[in-house]
Amino acid sequence: MKEIRIGLFGFGTVGQSVYKVISGARNAHASIARICVRNLAKPRETEVPDGILTDNADDIFDDPSINLIVEVVDDAAASYRIVTRALRKGLPVVSGSKTMIAAHLPELIELQQQTGAALLYDASSCGSIPVIRNLEEYYDNDLLLEVKGILNGSSNYILSRVFDHNEPYGEALDKARRLGFAESDPTFDLSGQDSLFKLVIITVHALGVYVNPADVFTFGISNIHDADILYAREKGMKIKLVAQVVKIADDRFTMFVMPEFVAPGKYIYSVDNEYNGVVIRGECYDRQFMFGKGAGGMPTASSILSDVMARRYGYRYEYKKMSYSGLPAYTTDVSLRIYAHYLDTDIPSLLPFTRIRESFKSENANYVIGDILLSDLIANRALLDAPDVFIADFPMFFLDRDD
Amino acid sequence: MKEIRIGLFGFGTVGQSVYKVISGARNAHASIARICVRNLAKPRETEVPDGILTDNADDIFDDPSINLIVEVVDDAAASYRIVTRALRKGLPVVSGSKTMIAAHLPELIELQQQTGAALLYDASSCGSIPVIRNLEEYYDNDLLLEVKGILNGSSNYILSRVFDHNEPYGEALDKARRLGFAESDPTFDLSGQDSLFKLVIITVHALGVYVNPADVFTFGISNIHDADILYAREKGMKIKLVAQVVKIADDRFTMFVMPEFVAPGKYIYSVDNEYNGVVIRGECYDRQFMFGKGAGGMPTASSILSDVMARRYGYRYEYKKMSYSGLPAYTTDVSLRIYAHYLDTDIPSLLPFTRIRESFKSENANYVIGDILLSDLIANRALLDAPDVFIADFPMFFLDRDD
Repeated sequence: MKEIRIGLFGFGTVGQSVYKVISGARNAHASIARICVRNLAKPRETEVPDGILTDNADDIFDDPSINLIVEVVDDAAASYRIVTRALRKGLPVVSGSKTMIAAHLPELIELQQQTGAALLYDASSCGSIPVIRNLEEYYDNDLLLEVKGILNGSSNYILSRVFDHNEPYGEALDKARRLGFAESDPTFDLSGQDSLFKLVIITVHALGVYVNPADVFTFGISNIHDADILYAREKGMKIKLVAQVVKIADDRFTMFVMPEFVAPGKYIYSVDNEYNGVVIRGECYDRQFMFGKGAGGMPTASSILSDVMARRYGYRYEYKKMSYSGLPAYTTDVSLRIYAHYLDTDIPSLLPFTRIRESFKSENANYVIGDILLSDLIANRALLDAPDVFIADFPMFFLDRDD
Repeated sequence: MKEIRIGLFGFGTVGQSVYKVISGARNAHASIARICVRNLAKPRETEVPDGILTDNADDIFDDPSINLIVEVVDDAAASYRIVTRALRKGLPVVSGSKTMIAAHLPELIELQQQTGAALLYDASSCGSIPVIRNLEEYYDNDLLLEVKGILNGSSNYILSRVFDHNEPYGEALDKARRLGFAESDPTFDLSGQDSLFKLVIITVHALGVYVNPADVFTFGISNIHDADILYAREKGMKIKLVAQVVKIADDRFTMFVMPEFVAPGKYIYSVDNEYNGVVIRGECYDRQFMFGKGAGGMPTASSILSDVMARRYGYRYEYKKMSYSGLPAYTTDVSLRIYAHYLDTDIPSLLPFTRIRESFKSENANYVIGDILLSDLIANRALLDAPDVFIADFPMFFLDRDD
């Protein structure tokens, strides 16, 4: 068990938190040797010893004393270059870049197997909640049926302000920006993309199957209307942005990211503000619920530290489940019940519902609740981008506490 | 990665669940070779192939094809003999026996180090919730401040019937017995002993320190009175049986098991029925909450299966934290605010409160709320066993959602 000397890429909010946490950890036997940043001149809050900062990646890769790369850059292309370069050199990497990992995971797994170098990325999904590690190590059995949760802190903060504090959506979004929960361009969070990438990574470790993010139905909360909020409130429910992967038979599973009407009995109902919550359902243990801070510099840094310390003991993901026999196949041939709000777009005639269960029309807002195939939602994805359209999962049983 | 052939000790509720789960797990590469029971003639629900059952432990220990012992016997002395015999033979063991492990952990750790054989026991604490594994592997850093939770399903079921369903305590206890949540002698659960043993194990993996169960203040719910229930209800609170280990300074921690008045904002407030819930608090990640089924054959068996599968990859607890420098020391020199109900026993004059904050007297029940040293509670432990006395932790701040 050697001392770990880290080459750190990225020194923004997360990078600086990583520096603080690792410098302060007495028993980590880890230190940060060099930090590579894009712009040396940029003013930063955290003071570091002279000569540690560099803008030349070679200063890290050519330093033979560095035996671990930690990569928290906010640029998927740069992250890809750093991670693949490190792995090719046989250097293990701890990364927090969900976008990059979700896009390149099959290649990164192969690269790990070819080079023997490990890539850990628990921080990429749900910040401080150890979802990846638990799915990989603890729920490594055939019993896993479903992983479902709130994976994005920013959108959850906004919806929480709306539903728990009765704030208008626009005001909540502004507040999220001011508090740093939402980026200056919050599209990535609000469109569901951030949740999608985390879900893709989770699915690899939950079921052993990689699904291309482009093949997964993803609908965010950007187009939520006051009428939708009002409707949910009247029913005593909240709308949450939910990501889920669900086994629908022994040999098939489905996955999607979509707002959902959530009733008070559900575990995720009480996941408020910037928190994340994940429900893991299995055949023997019923439901397990993990809850914690999903975003922010320090929660992410604590997750990075756990991965760094795991490297002292040579820990690596084995991706055991990917080699299992009879892996379930991804399908979108599954019927969902959805709520669809519309105004000008004629949703009831344009979307191929197999059954309409409720429909409502008024001068200001119309909605329909009906059953539809997930594959038909995907086929009609462009239609759903109209600003007057908002859809949400409308689960069939509201009152049982089942997730 | 060889096939795992298991010698199973114990074939009661948990043992039979283990058999079902392992027999049905397609990718476990594990099978149950022999099952050792005390009484071969006892009728059992689960059918097994001829010749698998035995009442002679030698049939397992002398079978060279068996490479893992799974031990779920309901007898601490027998469990100790089986586990130590296996470890001495170099055979790894998966055990669910919290009483035995809590009592003998230092010796069992030494034995593992001497023989190289591993002992895993995630099932011993909180059934299906992977508390031990997460504390050992993921929260392995200096940032951990507190582990607090509801660790006993039976007592929580009873309190949940009382507080959520307005049932009298005696009726709730009967129901728990009928449903199999409480043993025919439920003393072990209701006295807090079960929670205590789990807490002792958790503390080893949380802080790297073993504390003898006899040195830990433990007070259960057996002596709860209608007046206590009424008092909590009037304040809008529930009483829960809570176990906790808390760092009170960098170099000191305390731990105890005691009923607690829990306000609605707290995470553990909503842990109902036979569920367990654990809050892990740390410096960076604030609070993490893990929630799931803490008892019962199948949840326990799923946890055993996870440990069995971890053995395929040679997983073992490293007890890393025990070798850390500057381990915190256990102290009982800490002030608590408690609620104490009494009738004939003159609690206000017999217990050395440092400050009385509230006192109430009536014809049927008296109570006092005051500050007292934990060490003074321990010194006066016998006094608290009087049937008219019930004490509960009365935390100072009710309204902040802090655990």
